[in-house]
Amino acid sequence: MTIQILSERRVDGDLLERSVLVGDVPGILWMPSLDPAGSAPLILLGHPGGLDAQHPRLLARARRGAQDGFASAALELPGSGARPRLPALEEARAELRASIHAGEPVADATVDRLVLPLVDAAVPECIAAVDSLSAVPGLGGPVGYSGGNISLGVRLALADQRIAAAVLFAGSRIPRAIVEEAPAVHIPLHVLLQWDDIDNPRQAALDLFDAFGSPEKSLAANMGGHTGVPPHAGDEAARFFARHLGGALRAA
Amino acid sequence: MTIQILSERRVDGDLLERSVLVGDVPGILWMPSLDPAGSAPLILLGHPGGLDAQHPRLLARARRGAQDGFASAALELPGSGARPRLPALEEARAELRASIHAGEPVADATVDRLVLPLVDAAVPECIAAVDSLSAVPGLGGPVGYSGGNISLGVRLALADQRIAAAVLFAGSRIPRAIVEEAPAVHIPLHVLLQWDDIDNPRQAALDLFDAFGSPEKSLAANMGGHTGVPPHAGDEAARFFARHLGGALRAA
Repeated sequence: MTIQILSERRVDGDLLERSVLVGDVPGILWMPSLDPAGSAPLILLGHPGGLDAQHPRLLARARRGAQDGFASAALELPGSGARPRLPALEEARAELRASIHAGEPVADATVDRLVLPLVDAAVPECIAAVDSLSAVPGLGGPVGYSGGNISLGVRLALADQRIAAAVLFAGSRIPRAIVEEAPAVHIPLHVLLQWDDIDNPRQAALDLFDAFGSPEKSLAANMGGHTGVPPHAGDEAARFFARHLGGALRAA
Repeated sequence: MTIQILSERRVDGDLLERSVLVGDVPGILWMPSLDPAGSAPLILLGHPGGLDAQHPRLLARARRGAQDGFASAALELPGSGARPRLPALEEARAELRASIHAGEPVADATVDRLVLPLVDAAVPECIAAVDSLSAVPGLGGPVGYSGGNISLGVRLALADQRIAAAVLFAGSRIPRAIVEEAPAVHIPLHVLLQWDDIDNPRQAALDLFDAFGSPEKSLAANMGGHTGVPPHAGDEAARFFARHLGGALRAA
């Protein structure tokens, strides 16, 4: 699949931001400054959808990655941003909101409809993006996944062996099917959990962490609510990638 | 209470190790190299008892602290090392071993007898040590507690307001009384949990972490069994102290 570069701008002097299309999926690619022979490992940034609204937070994460020599990329999710709405997804979101508003437990079937079709549509798009981005000059080596949308991270890691390490933010509803698939995941994982995230069940996150088959997995739980991940936790996540994807970097 | 320096040696060229007596309690003090006007915050190192056997691991932790400008000190526990045995403690240890050997749950009363009298004897010794060590030239500022013996860390933090931050290693049995006191703890905490430590109940550690009243608390769970804390987890703990005790350091 071809990648089209729609526009590019330099941010901070040493980070190049490119708006891209991978097939018909909009995305953003951030490239660190490299010496001409250098090659930056790629980190795919997971997010809740809506690239424009997410841009400031994604840019901050891309900047942090670039400090360690990593490129970052974010793809628009199916049904979000400028992409066509998905009526079934909208219905599942309405069900979730209604359950939370009514103070009722969210039905497993609602979580399944909310997460699984979206993940199954996004996984092949992520794989195609890794295919295309691997051919971009200056990009190469192992690939990391970093983000919320933890179910996408799990299924992508199982579907694409180029994903060599993942930082997973446990801040979303997790279908039972994902927990059942987790023992098959064996890559190094660093799981971020906001302990006082009132909208997401903590026990489900702990159960998923426990289920992962990875011999090297770490859980970093902090306070501050859903969006209050403290800066030091972001730095730890960056060091995790430097440890696990940095070998290619140093060899480059 | 006076502190006697029994002997001293320089290790690694820039770390001074002193064998000391605080009253009649043996201890070890490690001092980093300082400029003459400098003042090192102190980290009290918790450990399972037996200073001689623990020396290599304690020295490694003191070395890591010295990298960030911290002094470290370890006191022999009541009933351990060269100190007189405590028959009630030995009996509780035998009960614990017998329960584990028989594959039976360890009774709450056994955990209480194993932990609480020891903690209650050790807390005033730690306070006296902080009194004495604060008067040592080159030492000063806030004090940290770092170690297993998590119940000692909790009760010491509640008993001595000079303890400004603590790294707690959740790798020991935790009496219910300690969990009940935990909401009163408000200092910044960094809790290390070995997720696959088969000898210590994980849920008790999670319950204790949840109970702490500290607005800033983090849980770092890793794989590797009871003694297999990975090096990056030690580095994270060191950075926690640098964030929370380092102000005095930078001002010195």
